[in-house]
Amino acid sequence: MKIVAVDPFYLRMPDVTTAADGTQDTLLVRIRTDAGIEGWGECDASPLVSIAVYCCPMSHGNIINIRTSLIGETLDGPDDVLRLSEKVLRNGLDIQQIQHAYSGAEIALWDIIGKKLDKPIFRLLAEMSGTSDIAHPKRPYASVLFGDTPEGTYHIATGLCEQGYRAAKFGWGPMGKFGEENDIALVRAAREGMDSDTQLMIDAGVVWGTDYETAYKRAEAFAQFSPTWLEEPLAPDAIDAYGSLTAKNPRVPIAAGEGSNTYRMAEDLIVHGGIRFVQIDTGRIGGIMPSFQVRQLAEQRGTQYVNHTFKSHLSLASALHVFATNPDFNLLEFPAAGSELSQRLVKDPFPVDPDGMVRVNDLPGLGVQVDTEAICSYLVPVNIHVGAETVFQNAFL
Amino acid sequence: MKIVAVDPFYLRMPDVTTAADGTQDTLLVRIRTDAGIEGWGECDASPLVSIAVYCCPMSHGNIINIRTSLIGETLDGPDDVLRLSEKVLRNGLDIQQIQHAYSGAEIALWDIIGKKLDKPIFRLLAEMSGTSDIAHPKRPYASVLFGDTPEGTYHIATGLCEQGYRAAKFGWGPMGKFGEENDIALVRAAREGMDSDTQLMIDAGVVWGTDYETAYKRAEAFAQFSPTWLEEPLAPDAIDAYGSLTAKNPRVPIAAGEGSNTYRMAEDLIVHGGIRFVQIDTGRIGGIMPSFQVRQLAEQRGTQYVNHTFKSHLSLASALHVFATNPDFNLLEFPAAGSELSQRLVKDPFPVDPDGMVRVNDLPGLGVQVDTEAICSYLVPVNIHVGAETVFQNAFL
Repeated sequence: MKIVAVDPFYLRMPDVTTAADGTQDTLLVRIRTDAGIEGWGECDASPLVSIAVYCCPMSHGNIINIRTSLIGETLDGPDDVLRLSEKVLRNGLDIQQIQHAYSGAEIALWDIIGKKLDKPIFRLLAEMSGTSDIAHPKRPYASVLFGDTPEGTYHIATGLCEQGYRAAKFGWGPMGKFGEENDIALVRAAREGMDSDTQLMIDAGVVWGTDYETAYKRAEAFAQFSPTWLEEPLAPDAIDAYGSLTAKNPRVPIAAGEGSNTYRMAEDLIVHGGIRFVQIDTGRIGGIMPSFQVRQLAEQRGTQYVNHTFKSHLSLASALHVFATNPDFNLLEFPAAGSELSQRLVKDPFPVDPDGMVRVNDLPGLGVQVDTEAICSYLVPVNIHVGAETVFQNAFL
Repeated sequence: MKIVAVDPFYLRMPDVTTAADGTQDTLLVRIRTDAGIEGWGECDASPLVSIAVYCCPMSHGNIINIRTSLIGETLDGPDDVLRLSEKVLRNGLDIQQIQHAYSGAEIALWDIIGKKLDKPIFRLLAEMSGTSDIAHPKRPYASVLFGDTPEGTYHIATGLCEQGYRAAKFGWGPMGKFGEENDIALVRAAREGMDSDTQLMIDAGVVWGTDYETAYKRAEAFAQFSPTWLEEPLAPDAIDAYGSLTAKNPRVPIAAGEGSNTYRMAEDLIVHGGIRFVQIDTGRIGGIMPSFQVRQLAEQRGTQYVNHTFKSHLSLASALHVFATNPDFNLLEFPAAGSELSQRLVKDPFPVDPDGMVRVNDLPGLGVQVDTEAICSYLVPVNIHVGAETVFQNAFL
C-alpha cells in the first residue's frame, strides 16, 4: 500500500475554559492509503501548533514536515511503521513539537496495519517483541478534577461510587494552592465520599514545582487515607527534585510521566527520579511504539506502567493496546467527566463490564470507530497561508 | 513599563534546500513597550510551528499562547523577565514547542531591560549571580559544512585560512555516510587545508545514532589530526550511548548539546552523557537565562561551555552575553558561510578584531541593531485563520 493522505482535524467545544480539562478540544489524525484502508489517531497536544508540524515549510534538512515525510511512502507491515517513524523524527530533528504532533499519525499507521493484517495492535506488538499475546482486563479509575471545596469534592466522589467506579483519581483544582489544611481536607473528602474498599489516587498537578520537601510532607499527610499514589507533585522535568523526594521513601508512592514528550524523559524519571508508577500518554510521546518501549523499561525496573489519557476513547484504545498483555499493570486511567465532544468521538466507547473491568477490543487495528458524523459539528476550519502558498486547509471529514 | 506588542516575523531566502544550513530562514521576535523601548530576539526553530505558539487558541489552563501570557504585563527589571518566563512556561506546560518559540521573546525581554537600565545583558547577569562583570574576548571558529569530497573540503579550509580564521569546525555533509576511509579522508583534508597551528573541530551531525562503538572508533581514528572535539556523533537524546562512549575515554573529547530544548536535557548530557564540551543555543533552550544556568552547571562540573549559533549575529550577540564573563570558556561558534539574509540581518555584525578575537559589545541590551530595512525583502507574510478568527497576521516591520 501507499500512503495517499495525512489529514489532521482540529475539533473543539464551543466554549473553552482554563480548567485542567484536556477534553475541551482535540487533534485527530486520519491517514489514508491507496488500498482504501484508513487509520485514525489522536494527539493530546495543542491542535494548532501540531497542525503546523504537518505543513510547515522546510527550513533545512532537519525541519521537514510530517506530511512530506509520509505521503507516497510504502506501508505494508509493522516494520514500515518503525521505518517511517524513524524517518519522520529524523526529518523533524529540529522541530521541538515533533513527538506531540506525530503521535496521532503513528497511532493511525498502527490502526491501518492492524486492519490490513486483521489483527489487533496489542497482538502485533506481542509478535514483534516475542511476548505473550493474551490481553488482560484493567481496573478503570475515574479521572476527575477536585471540586472547588472539600464539600464539592465529596459530592463528586459519591457520584462516582453511584456510577459503579471502584477506583478514582482526584486532581488539580485547589490542590496545593491554599495550604496544608485545605489539601488534607480535600483528600479526606474524596476518601469519605468513596466506598471504603475503593482505590483513591491524588494528582497534585505539578503544583509544588521543585519543592520536594513540601511534596514529601503532603505525601506523608495523605498516607492516612491510603491513596494508591501521589501524582505529579513536582514539575515534569524536575528530575533531581523527584530523586530527592523518592529517596525519602514517602509512605504514599510517587507517580509521574504524563509530561514525557520523549522516551528519554520517561526513562530519566524512572531511573533518576525513582518514581513507582510511570504514566505515559500515547498522544504525546510519539505514539504506540515509544510507549511500548517505556512499558518494557518499566517491566525491567519494577515500575508500574499506567496510561495517561485525558482525551476520547480513541486515545483510550491506543493506550490499552500498549499494556493490555501485562496482567500486573492492572490500572487504567478512564476519563469519567469528559466533554460531549470526547464522549461522542467514537461510536463504540469502552464499556465497564459487569465485573467492573475494562477490556481491549480483540478487533483489527485500534478496534474502535471514529464517528465522523457526530464530530462534524465540532470541526474547526483552519487555514494557514505562508507567502503566496496555502500550506494548510481542512480536508473533508 | 507595560508590554504592548509581541510580534514574530518569519524571514527566509527565496530558495530553501535540504542542506544542513540553519541560515536559510529564521524567526525574529520583536517586543514593544508603552515606554517606546523595543527589544529583539531570534529563534533557531521552525518559524511556522513557533509562530503557532504565539497565537494558538487556548486548549485549557496548560495550553495558553505566548502573546496572551505577555501582553499587558509589567516589565521593569531582570526579576520581571524571570517572572514572565515562569508564567509563559507554566501557561505553556503542555505545548512541547514552548522553549523553541519562547527563546526569541525571552531574548527580546533582556534586550529591553538592558536598554532601559543602560547596561549590557552580560552585566545584568553578573549582577544577578554575584559574579565578575568583566567580559573576555573569544576565539571565533568558523562553522562550515564539509565539502562533498575531501578535495572540496580542502578548498574550503584553505579559504578560511585566507580569511584569517585560526579555528574552524567542519560538519555534516558526507561525514559518516560512506565508511571509515572517506570519513578519515575528509578530516585529513580539513586539517591539511588549515594552517598547522589552527584549531580544528569535527561535527558528525548525529550520524551514528546510538552506535557508540562506531563513534568511538572514529574518535580514535581522528585523533591523529588533533581535533579539539568530535561533536554530536550520536542522537541528541541517546544519553546512555553518550555515557558508554565517554566512559571509553576516546582521545578526542566529545561535544554535544545543541539539541537541548530544556535545561534538563543539557544537564542530562553533562551529568549522564559525560560530555566535555556543552553547546547551547539560546534560540532553542528558552533564551538567555536557561543558557546561563547551563553555563553555571558547566562551571561546577568542569565541562567547557560553548555557544551553538547557526543563525545571524543577533543570535551571536545573545550567545555572547551568556558566557562573555568566563575567560576559560574561550571558544565561540561564528557562522562563516551564512545566507545573505543572516549576513544582512543586523546593521553592526561582530568584527573579528586584529588580534583574531571577537568581543561582546559593551552597549545596552544585546548591543546590536536589527536592520529592518534590509530584511524587509525576506519577510514572509503569514496568515492563520482558526474558525471565524484570524489568529495571526504579520505586524509591520
